[in-house]
Order: sequence, then structure tokens, then C-alpha cells
Amino acid sequence: MSLLVLTAHPGDFVWRAAGAIALAAARGERPVIGCLSFGERGESASLWRQGLKLDEIKAQRRAEAERAASVLGAELRCYDAGDYPLTETPALTQSLIDLYREVQPTVVLTHAAADPYNHDHATAHAIALRSRVLAQAPGVEGPGEVIGAPPVFCFEPHQPEQCGFVPDVLLDITEVWNRKREAMQVLAAQKHLWTYYTELSARRGLQAARNSGPNLGLPNDTRAEAYQRVFPQVTQVLS
Amino acid sequence: MSLLVLTAHPGDFVWRAAGAIALAAARGERPVIGCLSFGERGESASLWRQGLKLDEIKAQRRAEAERAASVLGAELRCYDAGDYPLTETPALTQSLIDLYREVQPTVVLTHAAADPYNHDHATAHAIALRSRVLAQAPGVEGPGEVIGAPPVFCFEPHQPEQCGFVPDVLLDITEVWNRKREAMQVLAAQKHLWTYYTELSARRGLQAARNSGPNLGLPNDTRAEAYQRVFPQVTQVLS
Amino acid sequence: MSLLVLTAHPGDFVWRAAGAIALAAARGERPVIGCLSFGERGESASLWRQGLKLDEIKAQRRAEAERAASVLGAELRCYDAGDYPLTETPALTQSLIDLYREVQPTVVLTHAAADPYNHDHATAHAIALRSRVLAQAPGVEGPGEVIGAPPVFCFEPHQPEQCGFVPDVLLDITEVWNRKREAMQVLAAQKHLWTYYTELSARRGLQAARNSGPNLGLPNDTRAEAYQRVFPQVTQVLS
Amino acid sequence: MSLLVLTAHPGDFVWRAAGAIALAAARGERPVIGCLSFGERGESASLWRQGLKLDEIKAQRRAEAERAASVLGAELRCYDAGDYPLTETPALTQSLIDLYREVQPTVVLTHAAADPYNHDHATAHAIALRSRVLAQAPGVEGPGEVIGAPPVFCFEPHQPEQCGFVPDVLLDITEVWNRKREAMQVLAAQKHLWTYYTELSARRGLQAARNSGPNLGLPNDTRAEAYQRVFPQVTQVLS
Amino acid sequence: MSLLVLTAHPGDFVWRAAGAIALAAARGERPVIGCLSFGERGESASLWRQGLKLDEIKAQRRAEAERAASVLGAELRCYDAGDYPLTETPALTQSLIDLYREVQPTVVLTHAAADPYNHDHATAHAIALRSRVLAQAPGVEGPGEVIGAPPVFCFEPHQPEQCGFVPDVLLDITEVWNRKREAMQVLAAQKHLWTYYTELSARRGLQAARNSGPNLGLPNDTRAEAYQRVFPQVTQVLS
Amino acid sequence: MSLLVLTAHPGDFVWRAAGAIALAAARGERPVIGCLSFGERGESASLWRQGLKLDEIKAQRRAEAERAASVLGAELRCYDAGDYPLTETPALTQSLIDLYREVQPTVVLTHAAADPYNHDHATAHAIALRSRVLAQAPGVEGPGEVIGAPPVFCFEPHQPEQCGFVPDVLLDITEVWNRKREAMQVLAAQKHLWTYYTELSARRGLQAARNSGPNLGLPNDTRAEAYQRVFPQVTQVLS
Repeated sequence: MSLLVLTAHPGDFVWRAAGAIALAAARGERPVIGCLSFGERGESASLWRQGLKLDEIKAQRRAEAERAASVLGAELRCYDAGDYPLTETPALTQSLIDLYREVQPTVVLTHAAADPYNHDHATAHAIALRSRVLAQAPGVEGPGEVIGAPPVFCFEPHQPEQCGFVPDVLLDITEVWNRKREAMQVLAAQKHLWTYYTELSARRGLQAARNSGPNLGLPNDTRAEAYQRVFPQVTQVLS
Repeated sequence: MSLLVLTAHPGDFVWRAAGAIALAAARGERPVIGCLSFGERGESASLWRQGLKLDEIKAQRRAEAERAASVLGAELRCYDAGDYPLTETPALTQSLIDLYREVQPTVVLTHAAADPYNHDHATAHAIALRSRVLAQAPGVEGPGEVIGAPPVFCFEPHQPEQCGFVPDVLLDITEVWNRKREAMQVLAAQKHLWTYYTELSARRGLQAARNSGPNLGLPNDTRAEAYQRVFPQVTQVLS
Repeated sequence: MSLLVLTAHPGDFVWRAAGAIALAAARGERPVIGCLSFGERGESASLWRQGLKLDEIKAQRRAEAERAASVLGAELRCYDAGDYPLTETPALTQSLIDLYREVQPTVVLTHAAADPYNHDHATAHAIALRSRVLAQAPGVEGPGEVIGAPPVFCFEPHQPEQCGFVPDVLLDITEVWNRKREAMQVLAAQKHLWTYYTELSARRGLQAARNSGPNLGLPNDTRAEAYQRVFPQVTQVLS
Repeated sequence: MSLLVLTAHPGDFVWRAAGAIALAAARGERPVIGCLSFGERGESASLWRQGLKLDEIKAQRRAEAERAASVLGAELRCYDAGDYPLTETPALTQSLIDLYREVQPTVVLTHAAADPYNHDHATAHAIALRSRVLAQAPGVEGPGEVIGAPPVFCFEPHQPEQCGFVPDVLLDITEVWNRKREAMQVLAAQKHLWTYYTELSARRGLQAARNSGPNLGLPNDTRAEAYQRVFPQVTQVLS
Repeated sequence: MSLLVLTAHPGDFVWRAAGAIALAAARGERPVIGCLSFGERGESASLWRQGLKLDEIKAQRRAEAERAASVLGAELRCYDAGDYPLTETPALTQSLIDLYREVQPTVVLTHAAADPYNHDHATAHAIALRSRVLAQAPGVEGPGEVIGAPPVFCFEPHQPEQCGFVPDVLLDITEVWNRKREAMQVLAAQKHLWTYYTELSARRGLQAARNSGPNLGLPNDTRAEAYQRVFPQVTQVLS
Repeated sequence: MSLLVLTAHPGDFVWRAAGAIALAAARGERPVIGCLSFGERGESASLWRQGLKLDEIKAQRRAEAERAASVLGAELRCYDAGDYPLTETPALTQSLIDLYREVQPTVVLTHAAADPYNHDHATAHAIALRSRVLAQAPGVEGPGEVIGAPPVFCFEPHQPEQCGFVPDVLLDITEVWNRKREAMQVLAAQKHLWTYYTELSARRGLQAARNSGPNLGLPNDTRAEAYQRVFPQVTQVLS
């Protein structure tokens, strides 16, 4: 069992998907994070304002990403594919095909299809979806075996309504909440987001409790992350 | 664990949801079907053409419904609330509140929100959703305890695209397929639908196989039913 | 061949569908207009301001409607079912079931599904759709034979975008444009709408020309009416 | 200048629209709240569990509503039209027509069009919209003058994504935030919602800051409420 | 009269549009198929598993496509523009502009706008739509005369609901059904799809019968293909 | 205060946004128009038919654009980035980033997100949105200061319904209507559009009047332009 998380920037996997990653690790599965850029231009305003150079900024963001991944028990692969704008290239696509075939993910997480506040998020979504389909075909070259059809979940954007994001899955992350909080604290420059995402986890948790049904019966102080499926759920039990 | 199925007509629970019902029964859960009418006007054209009277038609449709429910291992409650049109009344609503509270369902199945080919289906959907919320409130009178918030799944209408039905859950019913076929055969007057729904189960099954991911890995000859959720899924594992 | 037009008010069939009605008449088909109210409260502001009484207003609106229908070569049936609000009742529904069965329409026209500026339009749409389905069932009582499944076209509301109206059919009415203009002139109290709907017919006509393809090849001075289908088109030729 | 707020229950105008109400009062406009029920069945679970009777519950909810309205500087009109379910009746509709004509609102606030968690909210929306249109017509009886076409804003439901709520207006309520907090504190039985709506105001405020443009330039600690328009904005300046 | 069919892969025009092609040929019109790739990577898994090389696979797929086109009475143009991924290039666009101008189509068929299971389908749709508009402009270079505005129909994807495909046209292909079956049988390696698309034609045919209206009155054993329009229908008769 | 208008072609800013531009100029703000191409291929059919060469056509379109901008009191920047198709390139993007930073717009106008009749409009929309976000980031190079988050309004496409355009803002341009008419008259080759857009301004004006509320109270002969927001409105007063 393995979880593949494809994000445009280092922060994305922490704020939006750290719970799912830590849960996978806690179950003994293998989580792998493919980070397409270092967010060196679009999400590093404070570093630029401090006068750092491009390479220094990349190095600092990479170091942070590695610590956060390590807290969550995940491997990190960095692609340094450019930021603001992130651009789809044949070389990047081939790298991701290879990654899919190496990891053989049972579940995939990535950005939502649209984000008018950060177009790199939409680009990362498109690349993740397209390379997944290419990795399924024996006729597409590259090392490793073709993959099956792992389900894909989009994690929650910062301004969900303007991104067409309507959550259809609420994931209970209460068990690994402390782990997510610790990973957030690695991102020391964005302290204001600690509170924001702590509150979001409580709000999504309350929503999970209210929708959880008599069977699961989650309490009101649940912590949760919201996701949106790209493909229909396949199941043997309705619940 | 109990499954509550609310349908406008007897045929609906057989063609569209028999797999889910039989699966629940096979797992030892309690399936209860609330059938709001006998389909005596809208779905009994051949009986009217034979010259039967209203009461005879109702009796015949009820008998059929009881045999089909029995094949599936489910209880049947008939409400005789009128057909073509089915009308929402305070008395019917109260009956369903009482049913919800008696059954305490862990899962609810009903029609999709719209059906321009049969407006009773949309009415049944609205009644099922509204009485579910009323049954949750201590301030609403009636026997029994209030219920929690069981998830609701809409089963597939006959012409799904014109009903705004986009399946987001594909339920593997292979294990109980023979049971569903047997229940369909109870509806002797609608033999042409046996083939139709047999093919549909194969088509939805193939789709389930193609979307099932490396973990579940369903074979191509899977039988499935399609559903659409009303509320977000709450889960502790993404899959 | 027969055309059934179901509208909430007298003006509706003139402004929005007179071209389709006149075309049907010109082809020797039978057009029948079912007018659910006289628009006596919601669309007769100037008559109320003149101090007329309810009965006088109804009589005046009926006379106007009869003249306009006559210009278009159509029969008019008035239901006097109330206005602002128009209310769905079992008696009105039965009248319309009977009308459907009498007329045996090959095509049906009515309002769009929503109109936040006039809720009676939405009510008329719902009644027209529901009684059409009821009229198809042998089990639903009433004189005459059951009907088939005539296609339904929604005509254009006054503020289309706010009503979710997206035209998918543009009907060339150039041939009967003079007839439509004459019918509009019957509605003497609403002179400002003559210009409005003359311009609209030119705008929809230009759109029809631009979308008409090399085969039909309509000229830029075409006059057209816009419609939205409720059910898919069934055809033996793509064009 | 006057603001008319039409809600299903007392709590609604506090949690969802208190900022807009207090702002109107602060500008010297007249805010009037029409509360269709006391929320005596659906939103008074704790009172029922304490064993209170229907009349006692209504009285207590009314007293609370009056205190909250008074804190916000608004008049309160209670319609006691029933709760769980709230039902649209000709008498209620006429009362609201009369209210519209008395208040002559320049702005109207009400619930969003859909809410699968509380169908009374959707009913209140429909009644508010329908009676507004009826109040515009000289042919509809009742005291007072007909009204114009005041813009309508839907306030934010508790689970916005499941209600199809996409905010298109973010209202800066920083100036009256203390007033809103005070009004929330009147609702002593729902202390857990104080935190919830305090956090929501900060989240919507941050969103307002991020979307506010260089001209308005709101700070990050803005407090805001989210709204969705029913009709297009009409303006003389784009901003 | 001529029909232009633009597809990503050889199989597409057989499974999804063979009926429309054979109907055009039967009416004496000129059908031309533009096949952008040979499906050599994405849809030739079995050939790759047999160890064939790229050129052999392309040759085999081309031969098959030619036989199928010949059965249907259509010309085939192959563009060998690459597969998995199919990429939009200025050269390919210019080739298609030239093709449009040479064929002067009265009707165009292509893929639906989205397909999360095969992104080349979406790419083919975009290329087909964009080159059609370019071919209309005198200022865009190339041989031949500019074209008019032929209607465009999207044919049905394999998993329609996940592609946002809602059929608005059902084409009766009963008359040429044998021809379509024969063309399907040319695709010997995909025998399982013969059954699938035979059943689909029956299902869409039954739907066509149910929606066909008293005028056309199709029987229940109709064979049909489903399409979705890109532009509004322009017509002189509502039907 | 400054208004930045980004259009694919010279005509676009005249037909669709001249009112907003003239209003800004009348208020003493600085309007700047960035015109990405000269429309030399797609919108200059009559010039090609007269036998002019590419450079002559560009020169003539540029001269026209300059005269129209001058009438409206706006600066014009031409990017000559190609037409039919307009192509997004890194160089064009950087030019627009620089333009955003130079102008520091308080409001941005551009095309709607989709236009199946002219794909360059959709491309211009995407470029305008993407370069706006890039211009906000300190990490993205170029002269000038980063910008804030100016609101973006899409102006009305020629066939709005087919472009998914639903107006949510109606701008009263009565005050500058003569100025817009004068700018339209500069475009001498497209005389038929003078009438079209004169009628459109009256139609949108009537709609503005009907939606304007008792507060603004616009008269029926208002002239207006329709817009659609990309981001939510942020305001301190609901109106």
C-alpha cells in the first residue's frame, strides 16, 4: 500500500494533506511526496524581502520540506520544475510517469482542478492527472511496470468556493492531529497559517461529526481534512 | 445495522437497489423498504389495459412487492399514499418520521432529486430527505427515539443523464447478483426490463472494475449498482 | 400535427412564442394555447392604476388574448386558475391532462423552469411538465386516449440569464414575422415591448444566421425565437 | 433607507446577518427582522430535553430573539408560522406582502435557496422571494404602496458547500463586530456557536482582505460576513 | 454535403460515430475521417504485450482503420501526430485548417470536451474546435476557400458521466446498424467491445424511442448513437 | 485610481467596455488598454478581401484603435502578439507583468473565460488572469513594485449564453453614452455593429433599471454594460 502526493509547492502537502499522509504512515503504508517546485517565487515573499537569492531560497524551502516530510514519515522527491509559473514539459511528465511506476500508488492526492489565486495549483493538478493516465499504458516508455487505476483525491484549496471545490470526502485525522501540528510548526515563516489550519481542521471535523452517521458516530471535537474525488468511489459496502 | 429504502413504487427497489438490499441482508443487517405507493396508475399500464380495477391492481402490485422483498431478505412497509401523482401530506410525513425512528437506519437509499419522466420519483426523494431531518429533532412529536444523521444514497434513475444523475459510488454486487436476478424475475410483467437491468449491472460493473484501483482490483465481469451521495462521505481511510 | 402552448399569462404566448405558433398554423397544423390565468394581478398594472375592477380586467385581458390567438391562427383555452400567485391544484392538473389528451400534441411549448422575476412562470412550467407525464398513463382517469411523448421546448424568459435559460434551439420565424408583429400590436397597452421583442427577434435571428451552417445558410436579417429543450432531440439526420 | 431580514428562526439573523443589521443601524437606517417561526421544534433540542412545553419554548425563544434584535438596533416581527416543517400558506404570504409594503426595504436578506440539513431554510427563502414579487404588483391586494425591486442577499448557511452557497459578496463588519459578538452572547444556550461564528468572521475577513483590491485595502484582521446575490448588482462604479 | 469526423484514435470513429458516418454515406454525402494518431501507445496494449515495435503497431492500426473506414464508405486521413500524449502543434493545426477548407463540411463530429480517462480525447476536441474557427477566417493562410459555420456534435465517451457528457441528440441508426456492426468486427483485437457497443446502441435506441414523440414514433428496438451539440441548433421546424 | 483593460483585439474594448473606460476617464482616473493583437487575421475579413497586406492591415487596425482610445480618454499599449491564434508566450506574459506593475490598476477588465466562437478571447482571459497573479509576487522579476489584488470584471461576449456568461454586474453608462457611441463610430468598417451595440446598451440598461432597487432607482432609458466578476465583491455596504 502506498500513497502518492503530488503538489506544486512544499507548503501544500503540509497544510492540506498532512493528516492523510500521517495516517498512511501510521498504518504502515509508504507515503511519497512529489513536490514539483520549491515555491521559490510565488510563496516565498518574506525570503525575497529579506534579500535572499534564488538558490538560497530554494535550499531553505527544500530543507523545510524535508523536515516536514520526515515528521510525517514520508519520502520527498523534489522536481525543481519552476514556479510562478510552473510549466508542463515533456521531461517533467516523463519524470512523473516514472515516479508513478516506481511507487505503484494505491491512492493519489493532488490539487483541485482550478485555482484563480494560484494557477500553478491548476497546472499541478493537470500534470498529475495526465501523467497518471500515461503511466497506465504499456506503450508509453520508461522503467518499471505500468500502474493500475488508483483513486485520486483533490485536497482543499485556500479559498475553496472560488476554486469550485465542494468536499465530498471528510477524512477523520484526529488520531494523527499532533503529527500534523508538528509538521505545520516546521514552516516557521508562516505562523499565521498554523492558527488558520488548526481552525480549519476543527471546522471540517465538526462537519465530519454532523455527517458521520450513527455507525461511525464521530464526536464534535474531531479533526478532519476535506477532499474531492476525481473518479467515482468503488466499494463493497455503502457507508 | 439497518438499511432503509424509500421508494415511490414497488419496481424501483428491485431494478435500482436490489443489490444493496441483498448485500445488507447477507451481512446480517436489517433491510426495511418503505414503498410509498403501489405504482397503481403510472407503472401498471398493462394491468389497466387488461381491464383490472384499481383495488385489484393495488393488490397484485403489493403481492409482487412482497415476494420480491422476501427474496431479498427485506421487510416491506406499504404506505398507499397515491400514485400519479404521489402527494406529500402531513400524515405521510409523520408516518415516515415514525418509520425512521423505528428502524434507526445506518444507511438510507432513495430516488434522485429530479426525474422529468416521472415526477413521483422527485417527490419521493423530497419526502425522504425532509422526513429524515424531522426525525432527528426531539421537538418533533412521535414514538421512538430521534435518529442520527445516516448517509443517503440516490439510486440510478432509468434515464440518468436527463435526471442530473452522476454516479459517485459504484457498489460491487457480484456476490448477491443471483439474488437480484431472482427478485427481478418476480416482476413477471416487465420481462423486457430483466435484460435491461442485467446489462446495466454489467456495464456499471465494468466501470467499477476500471475505477477500482490496485487495492480492490475488481475483475471485468463485476456486477455493480450506481449511486449518488447527498452528503459528503465521512471516513477514516481514503480508498 | 398539433402544437400545444401552455402559458401563465396571455402576453407570454405573443412575445415569446408567436413565431412558432404562426409557423405551425402556416404549415396547416393545429395550434392550441392553454392560458392558465389572465395575468389579471401581476401583469395588468396599468389597468389597476386606471381603477378597473378584477372582472373587468380579466375580461379585457381575455379579449386581447383571443384577438392575438386569432391573428396567429390558434385556438385559445382559458383556465382562470388565478394569478400572483398561480397555484397548482388537482382540478387544474386534471383540466390539463384532459387538454393534452384532446389535443394529442406533437410538440409542446411552455415557460422555462425558473424565473426569479415571476414565480408564476416557474409554476406554469412545473404544471405543464407534470400533467404531460400524467396524461401518458392509462391508469390516470379522464376522457380521451393517452398521449405519447411529445418534445417540450421552453420559450425565452424576459431576463434569460437570471432564469438559467441557455438557448439550444434557434427557430427561424422570418416567414411569419409579419404575423407575429401583428399579434404584438394587439397588446396595445404594452407598446414599449413591441420594440423590445422586435429587436430580440433580430438579435436571435443574427445568432441563428451565425450558427446556421453552410447547409441552411440563413441570411443576417433572419428573425428568430430562442428555445431550450427539456428532453434530448431524436432525429434521423444530424444537422 | 431600510433593511428587511427574513429568517426561518431566531438564531439565523444573529449568526449569519447580525453584522449587516448592525451596520445598517449604525448608518441610521431602519432594520426590520421578520422571523417566521421560533425554531421551537428544530432548533430547541436542549429545551425539549429539559422538559419544557411548546408554549414555554416559544416564549423563551421569542424573548431571546427580542433581546438580540434590540442589541442590534432592529425591530423584530414574529410570525409563529410553524417549524419543522415551516409551511407556506396564503395567510403567511399575505403577511409578508404587507410587511414588504410597510417597510419598503432598500435591501433584503434571507436564507440561501437550498439547505439539505434544514429544509425550513429553503422554504423561508422561497417565501421571501415570492412575497417580494407579489408586493411589487398593484393588482395584489393589501395595505400600503407597492414596492420597487430591492436587491436580495442570501446569508451564509452552516454548511455552505452542501447548500450550493458560493459567496459573491464579502461584507466588512469590523466596525460593528463588538455589537455582533454581544448579540451572539444573548443566545446563551448555544455557547459552542460563539466560537464557531467568531472564527468564521475572521476567516471571511481574511478572504475579504485578500480580495479587497488596492483601493479598499482591508487589513488581515478584518471581520466579514459572506453573502450571495439573487439578482445582478447594479452600479455606477466598478469596484 | 459532407461530414468531417475528427478523432484522436482509429477506434473512436468506429465505436462512437460509425452510425452517423454510414448514414451520411447512405444518403450520398461525402464522409471524411481525420484520425490524429494511430492510438499506437495508449490503445494498443495487446500489441505491445505481443512485442511488436512502434512502426509495426502503427502500420497495423492504420490498416485496421482503413478497412473500417472502407466498410463505412468513408475516406480516411491519418495525421500521425503522436499519441499518449497527443500534442497540439502549429503544423497539426494548419493541416486541419487545410482539411476543413478542402472538405467544406456541412457537419462536424469530434470528441467531448473532457475525458479524465484519456486526455488525448480532450486535446482532439480542442484542436478540432480551434482549427474550425481558424478555417473560417480569410486572414488565416492556406489553400482553399474559407468555410462557413458547420454544426459540431460530440460523440459519446466511454464513461459519459465522468466526462460531463449529457446527450442532447439521439440519432436513429437502425437503417445502417449492420454496417456499424461490420465495421466493429474489423477491430478484431477488441472483441469485448463488440458486445459493449451493441448493447449501448440498443440502450440509446430505447431512449430514442421513449423520447421520440408521436410524430417520429420510433419502435423500442431502435438502434441509436448519442451526441452532444457544441452550438445551438438552428431550425425552421420545432420537432 | 487606474483601470487596466486587457483585450485580444482592438474592437473588443470599444464594443464591450467603452462605457467603463469613459466613466473612469470622466472621474479623473487613468485608463490603460493593453491590446494583445491587432485582430489582423480573425477580425479583418473585409480588409483581406480588399487585398491589403498583413502590415497594412495591422497599421490600419492600430490607427483605428488609437483613435478610439483617444476618444475614450485612454492610453493604448499594443503587443502585436499574433492573432488567430493568439499564443501565450513567456515574453508576452512578462510584458503584461510589467504593465500591471507600471499601471498598478485598481480595477481590471478582460474577456470571459470561454468563447467557442473565438478562442483568442479565452486565451486573452487566461493570460490576463495569470499575469495578474504573477505580478503580485516579489519573487517574480521585472521593474516596478508588486501589485495588490485588483478586482477583475469580464465584459460581455458577442454570444453570451454560449460562453457561459451570466452577468452579475450591470454598469450604468448613461452619463458617457455619447462618448461610447463616438468611439464605436471610429470603427467605420463595422457599421452593422453600431446598431447592435446601441440596442444592447438599451437592453442591459432596461435590465439595470428593473434590478436597480428603490435606492438607485434608474430610469427605463438607462444605458448599461454587463460584466461578470471573477472574484467576490468586497464591500462595506450592501446595495
